[in-house]
Amino acid sequence: MGASLVKFVRGGASVAVCVLTRGEAGTFGTAEQREQEMRVAAEKLGSELEILSFQDCRIFDTFETRLRLAEVVRKFRPKIVFAPYHTNPSYHKDGGAHPDHTATGTIVRSAVRYARFSGLKDAKGEPWNADHLIYYMVPRSRMPNLLNDVSAFMTEWEAIARCHESQMSLRDGKVLDGLRRFRESYGNLLGVSHAEGFFIEEPVIFDLASFLRTSSQPGGVPAAVKGTV
Amino acid sequence: MGASLVKFVRGGASVAVCVLTRGEAGTFGTAEQREQEMRVAAEKLGSELEILSFQDCRIFDTFETRLRLAEVVRKFRPKIVFAPYHTNPSYHKDGGAHPDHTATGTIVRSAVRYARFSGLKDAKGEPWNADHLIYYMVPRSRMPNLLNDVSAFMTEWEAIARCHESQMSLRDGKVLDGLRRFRESYGNLLGVSHAEGFFIEEPVIFDLASFLRTSSQPGGVPAAVKGTV
Amino acid sequence: MGASLVKFVRGGASVAVCVLTRGEAGTFGTAEQREQEMRVAAEKLGSELEILSFQDCRIFDTFETRLRLAEVVRKFRPKIVFAPYHTNPSYHKDGGAHPDHTATGTIVRSAVRYARFSGLKDAKGEPWNADHLIYYMVPRSRMPNLLNDVSAFMTEWEAIARCHESQMSLRDGKVLDGLRRFRESYGNLLGVSHAEGFFIEEPVIFDLASFLRTSSQPGGVPAAVKGTV
Amino acid sequence: MGASLVKFVRGGASVAVCVLTRGEAGTFGTAEQREQEMRVAAEKLGSELEILSFQDCRIFDTFETRLRLAEVVRKFRPKIVFAPYHTNPSYHKDGGAHPDHTATGTIVRSAVRYARFSGLKDAKGEPWNADHLIYYMVPRSRMPNLLNDVSAFMTEWEAIARCHESQMSLRDGKVLDGLRRFRESYGNLLGVSHAEGFFIEEPVIFDLASFLRTSSQPGGVPAAVKGTV
Amino acid sequence: MGASLVKFVRGGASVAVCVLTRGEAGTFGTAEQREQEMRVAAEKLGSELEILSFQDCRIFDTFETRLRLAEVVRKFRPKIVFAPYHTNPSYHKDGGAHPDHTATGTIVRSAVRYARFSGLKDAKGEPWNADHLIYYMVPRSRMPNLLNDVSAFMTEWEAIARCHESQMSLRDGKVLDGLRRFRESYGNLLGVSHAEGFFIEEPVIFDLASFLRTSSQPGGVPAAVKGTV
Amino acid sequence: MGASLVKFVRGGASVAVCVLTRGEAGTFGTAEQREQEMRVAAEKLGSELEILSFQDCRIFDTFETRLRLAEVVRKFRPKIVFAPYHTNPSYHKDGGAHPDHTATGTIVRSAVRYARFSGLKDAKGEPWNADHLIYYMVPRSRMPNLLNDVSAFMTEWEAIARCHESQMSLRDGKVLDGLRRFRESYGNLLGVSHAEGFFIEEPVIFDLASFLRTSSQPGGVPAAVKGTV
Repeated sequence: MGASLVKFVRGGASVAVCVLTRGEAGTFGTAEQREQEMRVAAEKLGSELEILSFQDCRIFDTFETRLRLAEVVRKFRPKIVFAPYHTNPSYHKDGGAHPDHTATGTIVRSAVRYARFSGLKDAKGEPWNADHLIYYMVPRSRMPNLLNDVSAFMTEWEAIARCHESQMSLRDGKVLDGLRRFRESYGNLLGVSHAEGFFIEEPVIFDLASFLRTSSQPGGVPAAVKGTV
Repeated sequence: MGASLVKFVRGGASVAVCVLTRGEAGTFGTAEQREQEMRVAAEKLGSELEILSFQDCRIFDTFETRLRLAEVVRKFRPKIVFAPYHTNPSYHKDGGAHPDHTATGTIVRSAVRYARFSGLKDAKGEPWNADHLIYYMVPRSRMPNLLNDVSAFMTEWEAIARCHESQMSLRDGKVLDGLRRFRESYGNLLGVSHAEGFFIEEPVIFDLASFLRTSSQPGGVPAAVKGTV
Repeated sequence: MGASLVKFVRGGASVAVCVLTRGEAGTFGTAEQREQEMRVAAEKLGSELEILSFQDCRIFDTFETRLRLAEVVRKFRPKIVFAPYHTNPSYHKDGGAHPDHTATGTIVRSAVRYARFSGLKDAKGEPWNADHLIYYMVPRSRMPNLLNDVSAFMTEWEAIARCHESQMSLRDGKVLDGLRRFRESYGNLLGVSHAEGFFIEEPVIFDLASFLRTSSQPGGVPAAVKGTV
Repeated sequence: MGASLVKFVRGGASVAVCVLTRGEAGTFGTAEQREQEMRVAAEKLGSELEILSFQDCRIFDTFETRLRLAEVVRKFRPKIVFAPYHTNPSYHKDGGAHPDHTATGTIVRSAVRYARFSGLKDAKGEPWNADHLIYYMVPRSRMPNLLNDVSAFMTEWEAIARCHESQMSLRDGKVLDGLRRFRESYGNLLGVSHAEGFFIEEPVIFDLASFLRTSSQPGGVPAAVKGTV
Repeated sequence: MGASLVKFVRGGASVAVCVLTRGEAGTFGTAEQREQEMRVAAEKLGSELEILSFQDCRIFDTFETRLRLAEVVRKFRPKIVFAPYHTNPSYHKDGGAHPDHTATGTIVRSAVRYARFSGLKDAKGEPWNADHLIYYMVPRSRMPNLLNDVSAFMTEWEAIARCHESQMSLRDGKVLDGLRRFRESYGNLLGVSHAEGFFIEEPVIFDLASFLRTSSQPGGVPAAVKGTV
Repeated sequence: MGASLVKFVRGGASVAVCVLTRGEAGTFGTAEQREQEMRVAAEKLGSELEILSFQDCRIFDTFETRLRLAEVVRKFRPKIVFAPYHTNPSYHKDGGAHPDHTATGTIVRSAVRYARFSGLKDAKGEPWNADHLIYYMVPRSRMPNLLNDVSAFMTEWEAIARCHESQMSLRDGKVLDGLRRFRESYGNLLGVSHAEGFFIEEPVIFDLASFLRTSSQPGGVPAAVKGTV
């Protein structure tokens, strides 16, 4: 959902990125290097950055991880929480979902609730009730039900993605190609050049104005929605 | 979706209602009486009304019915087309879906496409490409993915529904009770008193502003969205 | 499934209610207060009551929790075990499912099996093979496949529900309204005033006599089935 | 569902079998021969028999076929209507479902409704509201949700099946083997020797007595349910 | 599935393409022009070509269309029949599926069966039992379960696709771009540059040799499978 | 999948069987006895055997179990990994799936990935990227998407299965009957006497040669595929 973050921030939204591990079990890069890359990327994006210190490959849905993430929710008080999709009905080869990603989605689902339980004294901070929970890293076996046109933000997204230098060697150096093509295929569905897919599990509130402003037809996304919030 | 129509019209949208039959095979009311009731209701609603002359219980997905509905689309040039859900994976006992309803959904799906084929000379009118196709009469076995808060329009909706006098004897005179409870149960999901459910099959275009304005949390629908467009 | 419990007990069935926590992380009520409320409610219902001492928000599917619940199964030797639905494919906002609820469903699924393994010496008690496992708290995104008409037991159910005094302030004091409307919407499906929904994952054994005695048609539930076992 | 018919009739139920075609496009047997075989089989079964004269391979969901089947419903006034499953999400190679079978399921779904519309004068007979619609020929890609133990009726079922002499050459004379194994595999699920599978799309009315009398556990079907109604 | 056809033919398979209409209701091109384009394309591909004379936008699942396609099956006696996916659970905006496409899938499903009924004298030709029925034009809401690496055949595919000159103006002249990106996104799943997706509804016969020769892992498709049959 | 193992080994494949527990919580047999039985069976089969020492009924998806299984993958370097199906959407009464089985499937899913992470130093052995992950113990509520004809290997399979002497008393001594009937019902789908079902979650790579060699039609499996690799 990187390019959407760019779009949100450039459109005036305030964004905080929470990272659970430093990816130290990956093939490329050390923990220190990757933390440094994250900091550069967040600065370029213009978001806040919260790095938790869970260990790579060891993210599991426990009381403690739920609590820790509930505290992050209580700290930033977001209207919308985004998380990687919580189960892996088939696979994510293309999108690279790691067991830590799906575990994170599962934990966030509970953490968002825990954040609002005022009786839950184990979690620091004031109770906070986020308005929406939306998933990214939608499994390829399931159609996103929200598509965000990010065509106008791909260049900037790529510049930010390149901050993660140590990861640029992945897939024979073609990791960005894969990510770009992924966004092209979702863009194809909207008739725009690039889009990112999301999945929301609750019914969306019907917003007539929003439907009147947009189009589900190929070629039908007006300029106003394409590039600005 | 009756109360949503009230909400749309009162919010300034222009609505046309297209009725396929006069329901002459029903238990109550004659074709003449029902047509008259439709006209009174449409006037009260403030919509245009198009009555086609298909025969009750004989709506089937044929080239001719697709063509006839494509002509209606070409005539009114809607941004959004609403249709009853197109298949009946299980049942509609509560909502009263009739084989004609599901057939209509199937036909509309093709008619919306036919309306935009400029080579389709059999259909009268200029080609028109509607922006969205959204279904109402969502089967109870499937969760709506759009919910419209209609709490503020229930009184007016009921007044309009009562225009269909001949149908008021259905279910031992409790037909409106059933329809009201149906909307209560969807309202329950949003934390409002009454809502109507819809199903859209395409991914919805992600609209950050709309998410920031609303809430999926119980009790979280702000007044601004509750009663006005 | 509260009103079904009333119906079962009033119909002569013997019921044991097992509670896993005292809900001490909730917004209202202390552990002591809630335990006291549970005891009053169980007495009014006429059921046995087993209170386990798991901690609120800390129910996870572990060997120890499976074992503990297997012991409860071995103790009460039920023909039917009821549990909250074991996964949360979307959400339960209306029904209030808590991560502890879905975890409980998952645990019970294994506990029922463990209860019958005679080699499982870690669990106290004689092996017991329950006949059926049926879920309540069916997610709203999935249709119940069993509906229990509880119209005649709603008054008594409400009196018992009110025993949980500390919880009556939930949802601005409208918690019972929500629960009632939920049952109304399932009742709508049967043509009765109130029903509770269940989900059974195994095929049900075809019982011709039962089908001949009932009706899936609106208005078709005969008096004999409506109010008595 | 042949063996279930035997079980129903032997248990005292009154059964009418309605056949739509004489199967004249099949590989074996003439229309006359097959009609004669049907009559012998129905007599042995003890059911009424209604043979309609639709043409083999030409069963389609039209107003006329719905009407014709609605008339059959009005004539026999059944509490339960059984039909072959109405769609073919994958295939029926084993069970031999023919396009005519799935079309029949689709038609019956509407015919059962048409039968109760008192305004539908095109259909002869008094309106009749059947209590249940249950499908047999459940596609192999979908689990039946009702299983009927027919172990005690397999011998008699086979004798009746053999009345369809012209069909005994199908599958190199092994057609009965296939049908028997099919019932064995469903029997496996119940822990009995043979069962037949059904699919009901409506929620089943919760019948505590029925659950208390049966078991979903392997080996748990008591003798009383095994062999008698 | 165009590039797969190139791969099949170049690998030595014998292919016949059957076209149902001349697309005369489309926006671009006349019937004559399109027929001529089809002939040029088939010649370049090296396939046989059968053009039926159904009318554009008027393909429906009737006895006559099933019969006509069964005759085509009987004429060419294929081992594998390919058809566009038979239902449209959501949409095909990107892939351009037309109601005629889904209708064709539905018809072929029955036609393949009719082709093997020796009693079906209405269809000309000797009975033929095709070994497999495989669908292309898989809806985007459903993951293909077969992916064919066509990377080595994209250039040739494009040359053949360009034979359909009149259609090159579609989507502002970007029709080939869309089709190429579609294949890129499926290629992404295999770790190859381009792939085409298929859906088979029957279980596939387990072929150990085939699994040992291939890989589901990214980057794991060996050269031998990439470019040759 | 026992008979498939026989078929694979007899066809020349090299197979390693990894067993997680000694089943000491089962009703019959001690840990020592069962280990001994496993050794005899593996020898008869001709496979390698790896017995891990997890405790029966205590298999959970933790970092340690993932690591342990990743080490097994790194040790044997398989092209194909087989695991019991990873979730239990409904039940396995017939196939006997135990919570340990589904947990194993979940663990293996992550272990296969962990095995290839070169940065994951906690796991012993050289990184290994298995080509395919295929599930056996497919839940009865879901159709296998791969079927392996094992008709020619049933006798040998039974001889090997009987090595597990202590388990032969299960289900009143009819455990083998159940397992055999299970394979008969899958065989029914292929038109062969016995088959085993598998589920693969990734799209299968389209292999034209394989489709040309086989048939999805009843009676269409040629001898060459029936009995040999």
